[in-house]
Amino acid sequence: MIRLVSVIGGSEATPSEEALAEEVGRLLAEAGFGIACGGRGGVMAAACRGAKSAGGLTVGILPGVSPEDANPWVDVAIPTGMGEARNVLVVSSGDAVIAIGGEYGTLSEIGFALKLGKRVVGLSTWQFCRDGIPAAGVIYASSPSEAVRLALGGT
Amino acid sequence: MIRLVSVIGGSEATPSEEALAEEVGRLLAEAGFGIACGGRGGVMAAACRGAKSAGGLTVGILPGVSPEDANPWVDVAIPTGMGEARNVLVVSSGDAVIAIGGEYGTLSEIGFALKLGKRVVGLSTWQFCRDGIPAAGVIYASSPSEAVRLALGGT
Amino acid sequence: MIRLVSVIGGSEATPSEEALAEEVGRLLAEAGFGIACGGRGGVMAAACRGAKSAGGLTVGILPGVSPEDANPWVDVAIPTGMGEARNVLVVSSGDAVIAIGGEYGTLSEIGFALKLGKRVVGLSTWQFCRDGIPAAGVIYASSPSEAVRLALGGT
Amino acid sequence: MIRLVSVIGGSEATPSEEALAEEVGRLLAEAGFGIACGGRGGVMAAACRGAKSAGGLTVGILPGVSPEDANPWVDVAIPTGMGEARNVLVVSSGDAVIAIGGEYGTLSEIGFALKLGKRVVGLSTWQFCRDGIPAAGVIYASSPSEAVRLALGGT
Repeated sequence: MIRLVSVIGGSEATPSEEALAEEVGRLLAEAGFGIACGGRGGVMAAACRGAKSAGGLTVGILPGVSPEDANPWVDVAIPTGMGEARNVLVVSSGDAVIAIGGEYGTLSEIGFALKLGKRVVGLSTWQFCRDGIPAAGVIYASSPSEAVRLALGGT
Repeated sequence: MIRLVSVIGGSEATPSEEALAEEVGRLLAEAGFGIACGGRGGVMAAACRGAKSAGGLTVGILPGVSPEDANPWVDVAIPTGMGEARNVLVVSSGDAVIAIGGEYGTLSEIGFALKLGKRVVGLSTWQFCRDGIPAAGVIYASSPSEAVRLALGGT
Repeated sequence: MIRLVSVIGGSEATPSEEALAEEVGRLLAEAGFGIACGGRGGVMAAACRGAKSAGGLTVGILPGVSPEDANPWVDVAIPTGMGEARNVLVVSSGDAVIAIGGEYGTLSEIGFALKLGKRVVGLSTWQFCRDGIPAAGVIYASSPSEAVRLALGGT
Repeated sequence: MIRLVSVIGGSEATPSEEALAEEVGRLLAEAGFGIACGGRGGVMAAACRGAKSAGGLTVGILPGVSPEDANPWVDVAIPTGMGEARNVLVVSSGDAVIAIGGEYGTLSEIGFALKLGKRVVGLSTWQFCRDGIPAAGVIYASSPSEAVRLALGGT
């Protein structure tokens, strides 16, 4: 079986978020992992492009029913027709999850990933607190290489 | 059609969270609204109990396939068999969403609700920030009556 | 809890199928049951109209995200945003299932209902066979009253 | 993108059904297609085994949350946690669908596939009729090579 890491983030992303995602995708592929993502643009496309540059496998789990909605770097398209509910599948498909930037959809994916007990690593993404106290859960990284190392179980 | 407001929060809740939820359920019923929730215990059961005390309709959208998993105050059980993916349905069923306390599942529901463009009101629940700056999105209330008023579009 | 029976069938239906569905909805309501359906037109709207004529509760589990897509006789709208995958929820919500007419979507619902171990009663709907031999599974009725009696466990 | 054909059928299958599935998997791989399936045993495992014998890619869309539930010939596991609702994803992931044997779950998948407008080819599987008249929809084949040729658009 090809082991996957989920890379999540917005379909609209800043150039620096896309650069982070591309590097994450490339490093995961070099480490022998495929990536699972939402299959669209922005962070998802950048991560797929990075993975393909190093020969990794890319899985895009799409909100609509048409595989043509996938970005050009998706190898395996799973068109769900389930809309935003497909976010659950994106995170359940990875051994771990790396969140880069992101908007509300990414927030839902982080919640699901933590609920499912996945290791979640964040790069320039959401922070959470309760009663003003930062919450445990997401492990924050400051670079793609640190994010990949942490996602793969390193310290 | 019976208009619904989604009430979300943990299946394990503190007594004060349950008291908030029961009051929210009661006030929604008094305002003529039904409630949609995840159908289980904790905040969900308390909200249903409050709604029933004022004659409101309660809808429980369950993770498993058995309607018997619903708490005793659920009128309409929707057993989905979809596990955590049912969280999407809980928030899509309400005109607005009130989040009380909550753990990671609630976090995923808040993300989905904001993504779907719902009005989300929080009571003792998650706060979010990006780069240390509190994020817009959730409207915070300090009492059940304020939460219900805000959820129903008041200011 | 309000017990539900799922009524399934096409969103485009013949006048005779609609007449069957309306009668089924009415008889279920008179027997004290609510109905779950896909919330749209044709057989679904007719079943809801019948149920409302006798004071029954109607639940419409919709493919899209907007409650406004429900037919006018739906009391509780569950907008899923999951497209055809919502068919699973329609059948899982009922104690039993009555299929009236129907096209391919109904075929998928009958398959799911049998897989979930539900009692499935058919009125002018699909028959199945393997190697030319009619398959067990669906119980066929010749009238709305027989369909409702069989669905509720009568013989 | 790697184009996929969905192969559906029971998790418990006869030796002859498994032989058909293995041959179908092998022929699809030789034609340059990957396969999507439900990832479990029986027809699914046999189709994956056949595909791997010819170097094809295999995708298993699982009902549970654990990738370990996949059969040993699955390359890409998508653990959905959605139970039987994952059947929709199995058929939506293929350009076409080949049904081999099968029980009620397969029946639901055939219904979904036809509803989604997919080409559905049957090998020793369900037949359908309305009012005693065989229904259009499924194209029946009498051998794995004919099934694959028809699924790929041949006549």
